[in-house]
Amino acid sequence: METVGVAALESSIVIARAPTETKNHALTAIAARLSDDRQIVLSANLLDMENGLTNGLDPSLLDRLALNNERIEAMIEGLHQVAALPDPVGEMTDLGVRPSGIRLGKMRVPIGVIGIIYESRPNVTIDAASLCLKAGNATILRGGSEAIHSNQAIAACIKKGLADADLPQTVVQVISTPDRDAVAELITMTDYLDVIIPRGGKGLIKKLITDARVPIIKHLDGNCHVYIDDHADLKKAVDIAINSKTHRYGVCNAMESLVIAKSVADEILPKLAAMYTEKQVELRGCEKSRAIVATINEAIEEDWGEEFLAPILAIKIVDGLDEAIKHINHYSSKHTESIVTEDDQNSRRFLAEIDSSSVIINASTRFADGFEYGLGAEIGISTDKIHARGPVGLEGLTCQKWVVFGDGQIRQ
Amino acid sequence: METVGVAALESSIVIARAPTETKNHALTAIAARLSDDRQIVLSANLLDMENGLTNGLDPSLLDRLALNNERIEAMIEGLHQVAALPDPVGEMTDLGVRPSGIRLGKMRVPIGVIGIIYESRPNVTIDAASLCLKAGNATILRGGSEAIHSNQAIAACIKKGLADADLPQTVVQVISTPDRDAVAELITMTDYLDVIIPRGGKGLIKKLITDARVPIIKHLDGNCHVYIDDHADLKKAVDIAINSKTHRYGVCNAMESLVIAKSVADEILPKLAAMYTEKQVELRGCEKSRAIVATINEAIEEDWGEEFLAPILAIKIVDGLDEAIKHINHYSSKHTESIVTEDDQNSRRFLAEIDSSSVIINASTRFADGFEYGLGAEIGISTDKIHARGPVGLEGLTCQKWVVFGDGQIRQ
Repeated sequence: METVGVAALESSIVIARAPTETKNHALTAIAARLSDDRQIVLSANLLDMENGLTNGLDPSLLDRLALNNERIEAMIEGLHQVAALPDPVGEMTDLGVRPSGIRLGKMRVPIGVIGIIYESRPNVTIDAASLCLKAGNATILRGGSEAIHSNQAIAACIKKGLADADLPQTVVQVISTPDRDAVAELITMTDYLDVIIPRGGKGLIKKLITDARVPIIKHLDGNCHVYIDDHADLKKAVDIAINSKTHRYGVCNAMESLVIAKSVADEILPKLAAMYTEKQVELRGCEKSRAIVATINEAIEEDWGEEFLAPILAIKIVDGLDEAIKHINHYSSKHTESIVTEDDQNSRRFLAEIDSSSVIINASTRFADGFEYGLGAEIGISTDKIHARGPVGLEGLTCQKWVVFGDGQIRQ
Repeated sequence: METVGVAALESSIVIARAPTETKNHALTAIAARLSDDRQIVLSANLLDMENGLTNGLDPSLLDRLALNNERIEAMIEGLHQVAALPDPVGEMTDLGVRPSGIRLGKMRVPIGVIGIIYESRPNVTIDAASLCLKAGNATILRGGSEAIHSNQAIAACIKKGLADADLPQTVVQVISTPDRDAVAELITMTDYLDVIIPRGGKGLIKKLITDARVPIIKHLDGNCHVYIDDHADLKKAVDIAINSKTHRYGVCNAMESLVIAKSVADEILPKLAAMYTEKQVELRGCEKSRAIVATINEAIEEDWGEEFLAPILAIKIVDGLDEAIKHINHYSSKHTESIVTEDDQNSRRFLAEIDSSSVIINASTRFADGFEYGLGAEIGISTDKIHARGPVGLEGLTCQKWVVFGDGQIRQ
């Protein structure tokens, strides 16, 4: 692993100063190689799928593991999209002159070496590598052992594409050893890695928080709330509450808890409950909600903090904005929360006081997404509070250094 | 410690939404209390100094521990300066409209709860607390045990000042238990703390990297370089090389290694060596430098990576820019490096390729400082690459959340 670290550090210097055209050339070359070698990738994936079946992998895991022509096309399309994004590296901001006479500014530069640790989806290999490469970073990728053949085949396409663009093949390194100790070593190599970005379930992330010595940019979980305020437009409230929960169930920006001001609950809750029930969403509510709709199941304490990722919804009736903010800040995972209200004062308080990476007024929580925010693509959604919050795109894969232009100035 | 964490989390919500006037009121009230109670603070400090003498503390440690009227005035002045700084909280940037119709932006908000772990200097209690408070954060401070009485006395002034501004006294908490386990517990309280900022020697920081589970913004060390290029103005080069080394020896932005292009070494090195020798700076050089000035001592490998913090300088002669960049990126601590050159091409390459938090052209490394950069004050100089690099002021004590303004939009 030390060899991998040294190679990453060395190639990080090359990719950091590579012109935009070279990086884009590599991205489109990788896309071409992936297109040419798709049968090799699909065969490798078939092997992983067969092994997965033999080893009794969970069907949802098998689904994530599976590649087909459509998924390969999506990877190719993704590479072209990343190539088309503006290059963040070199951007200068905060320019000014200080009383000493020095001119000062901040220059956006790559972070350096980024480690990506992920689970079954082989497409992460392409998604993560392409974004890191465009932002000028060297990457060390370590996927799940169940996807090892797929990842090796994809890695071979990446290597060829890098070579086509005259870049070192070690700009992107895919760790293929099935050895579990490799991860343990990777996350403590503070001399070589600048940051680790894990992509995977809560179990993986929690383990990394404990074991990693390299800083992590992470997504822990998405327990998102919608709050229907006293002053909500109830038509919008219904649309947003239904869309936030039922547009997709297994995504981190789906609503998991609905909070309703008691003054509007009598009117809106029966209507919503009927719609959720029709969509086979299980409702688990507080006592007050069950007094209005008797078919709602009783919520237990754990339900308020749970990321169901399933057709289950917790419902809480509150006195008003104060209790809503308190409840949400207490139970939320600081991911995304939305308020439905026509009251300017209340929406402004919600914006200021809700401590989440995305705070939304009168729109679905499902908008908290790199594509919807115009980032072009995202490496993930951070629930951390430092460096980058919410959807992390190219900018989150860079940092800013100070640059000083003098003319011989010295400190007095 | 859990009680401290809960109190910090609760008060972080109050201080996060406190208006600028309230925060400034608290800062000036703390200044007034410190002025009123200065005898109490000085007496407490005297006790720490006596204990320090009894326990045989190092003279440099005793110097850092000592308070006097002048240092108290500096703390009071610092509080007023922080009160006068613009409030970063609430600033909106990156506003735009997306094709879905949602309006999007980023809002600058406090980080939340910040832990500060520091060593002997009692003035850090005021400096750190005031910056964190102005940025809207709750703070947990843990100073060195040798300064315990001083810190308690200062904490009492802070509590009174917070009360004067009707803010919870737990917005700033100073841990006064001499129990060493308190630190071990503090740095793992991920449920309550958002970030730890250590202020202290390399030993403290290295221990925190290993033991902390809460993210850290840290300053590891400052092994800063000046590179005198082939195309340097030698008058500027002499000024900058002398100032960077000899302006102050014990500071993190002092030059520790001087790198000289061989084409100008014959001319400039004897002049510089004479000037350094006059200032009693010990020179440790590579073979080529010793061939030019025989009195230069032989440098060993460790000297290239060393932060001397003393009148010692390592000198390396290189073929030119390429070797200079390679040498510097290999040995530097990514703090601050300066090039002296009149060649635009070379200065641009140095800017782009040197991976340090401050990269300087034709000016002293001593400018890498929050005051010199116009931040007003700094909590420290980060040698990390994520979140904040270089001098960290109020902005580095905040983060940005996404805010979305909709009108009933849902995802299609």
